Amino acid sequence: MMKKRIKLLVLALSFAGAIPLSFGQQTETAIDDFRPSSLNQPGKEFPQVNSQGYARFKIEAPAADSVRVSLGLGGRGGTKLTKADDGTWMGTTEGPMDEGFHYYHVNVDGGIFNDPGALNFYGSVRWESGIEIPAHDQEFYALKDVPHGHVQQILFPSKSTDTSRRAFVYTPPGYEQNQAEKYPVLYLQHGWGEDETAWTNQGHANLIMDNLIAEGKSKPFIIVMTYGMTNEIKFGGLRNFDITPFQTVMVDELIPYVDKNFRTLADASHRAMGGLSMGGMETKQITLNKPDTFSYYALLSGGTYAPDDIKDKSDVNLIFISCGSKENPERVNEATEALKKAGLNAVSYISEGTAHEFQTWRRSLHQLAPLLFKN
Amino acid sequence: MMKKRIKLLVLALSFAGAIPLSFGQQTETAIDDFRPSSLNQPGKEFPQVNSQGYARFKIEAPAADSVRVSLGLGGRGGTKLTKADDGTWMGTTEGPMDEGFHYYHVNVDGGIFNDPGALNFYGSVRWESGIEIPAHDQEFYALKDVPHGHVQQILFPSKSTDTSRRAFVYTPPGYEQNQAEKYPVLYLQHGWGEDETAWTNQGHANLIMDNLIAEGKSKPFIIVMTYGMTNEIKFGGLRNFDITPFQTVMVDELIPYVDKNFRTLADASHRAMGGLSMGGMETKQITLNKPDTFSYYALLSGGTYAPDDIKDKSDVNLIFISCGSKENPERVNEATEALKKAGLNAVSYISEGTAHEFQTWRRSLHQLAPLLFKN
Repeated sequence: MMKKRIKLLVLALSFAGAIPLSFGQQTETAIDDFRPSSLNQPGKEFPQVNSQGYARFKIEAPAADSVRVSLGLGGRGGTKLTKADDGTWMGTTEGPMDEGFHYYHVNVDGGIFNDPGALNFYGSVRWESGIEIPAHDQEFYALKDVPHGHVQQILFPSKSTDTSRRAFVYTPPGYEQNQAEKYPVLYLQHGWGEDETAWTNQGHANLIMDNLIAEGKSKPFIIVMTYGMTNEIKFGGLRNFDITPFQTVMVDELIPYVDKNFRTLADASHRAMGGLSMGGMETKQITLNKPDTFSYYALLSGGTYAPDDIKDKSDVNLIFISCGSKENPERVNEATEALKKAGLNAVSYISEGTAHEFQTWRRSLHQLAPLLFKN
Repeated sequence: MMKKRIKLLVLALSFAGAIPLSFGQQTETAIDDFRPSSLNQPGKEFPQVNSQGYARFKIEAPAADSVRVSLGLGGRGGTKLTKADDGTWMGTTEGPMDEGFHYYHVNVDGGIFNDPGALNFYGSVRWESGIEIPAHDQEFYALKDVPHGHVQQILFPSKSTDTSRRAFVYTPPGYEQNQAEKYPVLYLQHGWGEDETAWTNQGHANLIMDNLIAEGKSKPFIIVMTYGMTNEIKFGGLRNFDITPFQTVMVDELIPYVDKNFRTLADASHRAMGGLSMGGMETKQITLNKPDTFSYYALLSGGTYAPDDIKDKSDVNLIFISCGSKENPERVNEATEALKKAGLNAVSYISEGTAHEFQTWRRSLHQLAPLLFKN
């Protein structure tokens, strides 16, 4: 009853303020085919998702006064859970969520916690809960019965930061057996508040590559992912961002370690750099600062290049620029057209129906990989 | 004031019941040199530990009525936090904790959540919060400026469970460069409620090996860690435990994959199996069922072998049995003596001042590794 009254109040306020909200999704009834999210902790029944993309949450906190989940339709403060007689709190999003991966957390009596049912993923400079809304195209990042590459945790020495730094290295299927073969390398960066675990945990980069390689759609190559928040941006904003510390780690420390410890084709014509969001910003600056290091550039929801940015066109084999259709696709397409007109090999990709989230970046990697190392 | 009254009540009850409790630690004042735990999430100030081994917690939940932390001195229901004016809840353990790693969680108004300040570790069939009490011997698992091995995530095909299963593989420093060298392998299992991430995340197995190898104290070898809860024990008890499903995964699927994809010395004389707690139980059963597969056996807080268990002494190069001094050291020492008397190469190790926790197992691996693959 309390819930109904609140909804009516919201309706009244909305009409009074003449805010153009669509209520179609709110009144629609969620189909009752909810199943545990594929990203739940082993054996946990909640959170759940249904075939329409609704998410349903269940949190135990018998003595709490208020439990909310940060995930829900935009701008409405997430999803408020209501208490059942057994002391559990339950609630369903007011409508379907976008396909793919979403970060979220739970607010219990004013404190921010993770959902004990969900796995955790590093984003927003903390380990957040994650939920997976099944996507129509989820096959391309599914775990299939194909040969699987390995993902290695390496600890590489970094004099500039006076420590051993962590990176993850994807080696493609066959890497161990084909001892004579050398491989090109993609350096792939996460976004602000994420870390070097994001591209495999949230992005399934390894499974995307395993599947593409099994289908013969991509050359086998190595992917290297490391932590990109090395300076004052660590827990602050991007305003005073200085690329130098991270560029030193990447170009002077990580790349030499990888070229020494893995069977790489160690030249710019076999080296790509890409990144999502802040990682795109880093990619743009480092590729332009170090034209002799990389020849394939990829910005995923991470800005654009202008033709004038490129000093020598012969340094560049490919520029790939992407984003979700709910971001700024016009800017991505216009920038790509301008680069093409200037004679550069530029490709754009727009992920349909997705925003600044990992489904956009999974799809972007899936589009990018087949274009890499063809020269 | 409330807190004092409760303490007095506890005292009264204890004396009344004549329970021999030591209150020395409770009345001792914690030295105010608290620092963030080394296992905190990046940038998080709490939880903290002091030089004596006290742990201090701070949880934000302004509207909560009750916040408790499961960690604290045994049998007293953990540590009750008290609310400050700013809406945060704080509390310190009543005394020093054992050295090393501890799992814990937070109870907020009757709901179980993780501490948003701490990293998460898989234990008790859930991702739990973890805290590290600095140990006097912590150097042996510290991240040092030495050559580091890699830890690879592999996905190996498993017909018996109809999926690709995950394992982690530690390859020692130099593995990539020394292409002609082949290595012995230790198969190392986690305990009940843990998973294949435990030995590197909680146990720092990779750093222990890096440091031992750098000091010339251990031969370089490969370590393989996979998930051992493959059957009905998954979320239940160990009563109806059947080793067959896991033995099939380990012996018929994982070992052939590892021998195919890594440069291993693929025979029993270069293969060890060890495990902690439930992993020790698995080790005992599999090594005895498959005497042609392994020749080095290690039980870490995971039971003992009797001389009669061993059918052919020539199958066994080493039996290593360990536990914490707060477990059952007499049983471990007696069993080892009996094995020695029967002519077996048996070694026991007791970790001083620790219980059924990871500090016992870190130290056990540190003792075990130098003894392996010497024949």
